[in-house]
This record gives sequence, C-alpha cells and structure tokens, in this order.
Amino acid sequence: MSRPLPPMRSDYPHFLAIPTRWNDNDSYGHVNNAVYYYFIDTVVNCFLIDNGLLDLKTSTTIGLAVDTGCKFFDSVEYPDIVQAGLRVTKLGNSSVTYDIGLFKNDKDTAAAQGHFVHVYVDEKTRRPVKISDKMRETLKGIHKEESTA
Amino acid sequence: MSRPLPPMRSDYPHFLAIPTRWNDNDSYGHVNNAVYYYFIDTVVNCFLIDNGLLDLKTSTTIGLAVDTGCKFFDSVEYPDIVQAGLRVTKLGNSSVTYDIGLFKNDKDTAAAQGHFVHVYVDEKTRRPVKISDKMRETLKGIHKEESTA
Amino acid sequence: MSRPLPPMRSDYPHFLAIPTRWNDNDSYGHVNNAVYYYFIDTVVNCFLIDNGLLDLKTSTTIGLAVDTGCKFFDSVEYPDIVQAGLRVTKLGNSSVTYDIGLFKNDKDTAAAQGHFVHVYVDEKTRRPVKISDKMRETLKGIHKEESTA
Amino acid sequence: MSRPLPPMRSDYPHFLAIPTRWNDNDSYGHVNNAVYYYFIDTVVNCFLIDNGLLDLKTSTTIGLAVDTGCKFFDSVEYPDIVQAGLRVTKLGNSSVTYDIGLFKNDKDTAAAQGHFVHVYVDEKTRRPVKISDKMRETLKGIHKEESTA
Repeated sequence: MSRPLPPMRSDYPHFLAIPTRWNDNDSYGHVNNAVYYYFIDTVVNCFLIDNGLLDLKTSTTIGLAVDTGCKFFDSVEYPDIVQAGLRVTKLGNSSVTYDIGLFKNDKDTAAAQGHFVHVYVDEKTRRPVKISDKMRETLKGIHKEESTA
Repeated sequence: MSRPLPPMRSDYPHFLAIPTRWNDNDSYGHVNNAVYYYFIDTVVNCFLIDNGLLDLKTSTTIGLAVDTGCKFFDSVEYPDIVQAGLRVTKLGNSSVTYDIGLFKNDKDTAAAQGHFVHVYVDEKTRRPVKISDKMRETLKGIHKEESTA
Repeated sequence: MSRPLPPMRSDYPHFLAIPTRWNDNDSYGHVNNAVYYYFIDTVVNCFLIDNGLLDLKTSTTIGLAVDTGCKFFDSVEYPDIVQAGLRVTKLGNSSVTYDIGLFKNDKDTAAAQGHFVHVYVDEKTRRPVKISDKMRETLKGIHKEESTA
Repeated sequence: MSRPLPPMRSDYPHFLAIPTRWNDNDSYGHVNNAVYYYFIDTVVNCFLIDNGLLDLKTSTTIGLAVDTGCKFFDSVEYPDIVQAGLRVTKLGNSSVTYDIGLFKNDKDTAAAQGHFVHVYVDEKTRRPVKISDKMRETLKGIHKEESTA
C-alpha cells in the first residue's frame, strides 16, 4: 500500500482560518485527532451559514453527517492557525460530499485531509429530501473533481 | 453504491461503556459527529492502558493516529450510554488498525462504526518503531478479521 | 486569606459517576480545568432529566447558567472516575444555586468544588419564570445548607 | 443582592479574537457555559506564550488553575467572534489573578466576565515557586485594579 499524498492549497477554492485553542492540545502536546473533526464541521457549516443555506432557527431540513474521515500527514499544535480548505467532490440528489484540506499556518501542503458526507433529511420524518436549487447552485461554485494524482 | 450494513455486537470481542455527557449534544439535540471520535479514542487508549501497553509518563514510543473514519447509522443523544466494541482488523510491523462499533444502550446493531489506525513512532525521532511482542500478543487477543458480509 | 477546605462526600445527598475520557487530559497530562465544568453541567442536567424536570423537546422554560465557578484542590487524570456530588444550597423564586463536589475515584475529600446558578426563563421572551411546584419539591430533596466549617 | 454590572472594553488593556466553532453551540443553540472556560484558558495561555513566558517543552514550573469562575450577562452563538479582554487584578508571590471580559463581536459591554487564578508550582514537587522577574514585569504591563463601580 502506498501512502496517499497530502493535497495542496491550490486544490481548494474556499478557505476559512481557524485558530487553535490551548485545550485542543492533548497529552502529547499536539492537537488531538478528534479536534480535526471540529475544524471540518466548522468550515462546512460556516460556509453554509455565510451563504444563507443553513439557518438553525428556521430550517425544516437538516444535514445529517453519515460518513466522515481524516488522514493525518503532519501535526498541528496550539497556537498554530489552521487554514481549512473546502471543496465539493460529489453532489447527489440529497447528499453532498466535501473534501477538506487542513493546512498549518502558511504551509502549502496539507497537515490533514478529511471528507464529510451530508445527507439532507426532513427534520421530522428523517426521510431524505432533495437539495434545494439555491444550495445546488452555491455548492457547484466550490465543486472540483478530485485530481487523479 | 449500496449502503454498508451496521455491524453487530457479536463482531466485537471487547467492550467499554461510555456514558454520554450533556455537552456532547449539539444544536440538533443529538451527539455531534466529532464526539464519536472521542469515544473511539477513549476505547482504544483505555484498552491499551488497562493492559499495561500505554504509560504516558514512561513510554518512549507513541502511537500516532494517521487515519480515522466513521460511518453513522443511527443517532445517539444524552443521556444514552454508548457501548463501544473494539477489535483489531490489521496488525502490521509498526501499525495497528482498529474497528470500533458504537452501540446505543442495549441495541444489538451499531449506531456507528469507526476505524482508527495507529502508527507507533519514537517519541523523539518520530520514525516508525516495531510493535513490542507484549503489545502484539495482547492485540492478537482481540484480532478478528472483518466479516465478508 | 486562608485557603478554603475541600468538602467531603457526606456533604452531598446525590451522586453521579462520570468516567473521564482520554481527551479530557491536556498538555500537562491531567484533566483540563474547563472540563470540570462539563462534569458540573452533566451532573446538574442528568439529575433534572432523571427526575422528569427537563425535557429538551417539550420544555417552554429553560434554565440559563448565569454564574458558575470552581475551586481546584487536587488533580484528576484519565482513566480516573469522577464521582460528582450534588446539592442545592439556595432555592429562589426563579433561580437555583447548586454546589457540586467532584471526587476522584474513592477519595473522601473532593478534588474540586463548584457552584452553578440556574435562572429559569421563558424560552421565547427570556423573562424569568417561577420554578414549578414539582421542581421545587424535588430540589428540596437535595437541599442542604452549606456547613459553617 | 444587586446583580453585578458587566465590564466594558475600556477595562481591559489586552485583547484576543477567538472565533466560535459550530460545536461550541449546545442543545439550546448558544455557546455552552463550559466553553467560555476554553476562551478564558486560551486568552491567558496565548498571552503567556506570545510573551515568551510559557514553553510547554522546556518549562520546569507550571501554572495550576486553582480557582476559576464566570458570570454570564448575554449569550454568544456560533458564528459570533469573541473578543477576549485580559487584565491582571492581583499579583502575588507565586500566584496571579486574571480578570477576563468576553465581548460578543463589536459590543462594548461584556457578554461574560471570568476570573482565573494561576498558582505556579514546580513540575515535579508541585510546591509553589516564586514568579520570575521577567513574568512579573510583563504581567505588570496588563495590571489594572478592579474599578470600584
């Protein structure tokens, strides 16, 4: 098995800066692996909120996380700033697959790469619902096929 | 693509009970997806500590998480108790792959299934080191091939 | 100023066991001070839920935390089990003051002592509302004046 | 008992911007009270690190949190940015008391006010040690008596 290569900044059309916090570090003095999923959750949801696609108070459909994952190439430690890159790699009828690159400060190769799959369901029935046209249009703006590296 | 099936309790030889906490719930009123990785981290490290394979104060080798992931089948919410099942699916020279099943209270099918890959490295040089015989023997005790379901 | 003395188990009429998690530890290898507030939040809300006094899905009044604090006497580290003691020290018209003793494993003197003040407000208007008779009766059951030690 | 008044920005000589994260929100849709202690921990430790007063890898003395607390005046919710104000209100032989004001976005009155007491001890013996001259000088730079409002 050959080890996958970390992605580059140029792979991502959208970025969010996420400063680490003191408590993100664990006993080994670096940011714990579970905390990367907070970074992933934050860049995805922040993008949706900023683009008017998620309003916790009024939405009747919610995005459920059904599959997430992360590969770790380098460590990050407080007080590093994580630059979280975001792109959509798959846009289904009711699901969206995001690819997230987490870069340490001004590094050009990622410290970690995650994926995150949202399925949109009705808040009450929990049955899948079609992604709205508005959301589809916005997500197309950061859609980028995975490179065949 | 057919949706993967959730694993059963009988797939796991070792279990740890992890009570949820009030703050594990997010805005949707269920345990946030990132928190599942705390459960995963906890069952893995607790197993190592209980078997004398991890001592934070004296160990000169550390297990780095290099690849983690989780599929979510059902939601968990405080005050549910998570029963975390653990097995080793791959035992390399310096790496261990764990499969973790997270069961809600007394349910027999998993609410989530995660994987977690540790690579053992020297604390100083960060170069891979061979897994000790003692650790290898203990991990063999919970080694179980993935079923071909 | 003389240092306050840690409380004893006998000061508390109600207890909840809270196992620590691997990630509760910070860079110093012990549970981070902020995590104690998760323990405090958990023992308070778990008591309310178990007694039918808090239902996130149906309640129209919510308890806002307006004042919290904690004094630390001893450290706790994973995999210790925290035994959280709870008592009510003040029961107002719309507010409740809790005293929480956090004991390490089977120790009889507390590792930490916290306080937590809830004010009950209407979910919509955020104006204080009177504590219900049912809640008042239940909270009286764990009401215990602070000793004048 | 009259309710204390929230502090103003002008009460603090030092500030750090801390963006909230999606997962900081709890079931009520606002940042959970325990998370404010992460903000408090972060502004204190970031100040120390930025001023060369804390190096986790080389320090032989560590600052133990012995007393923390927080009063909440207003709620904060993701994606608000918390502006954390910091000042020293008491500088003892081996202890430092910080006052922290947490401001929501560009608000001039604090959403919350915390205190945080560090006692410096030897990493091994856990006996109190005198604060170094360098640290004392730096902390004097953000020393400001509490106003008698």
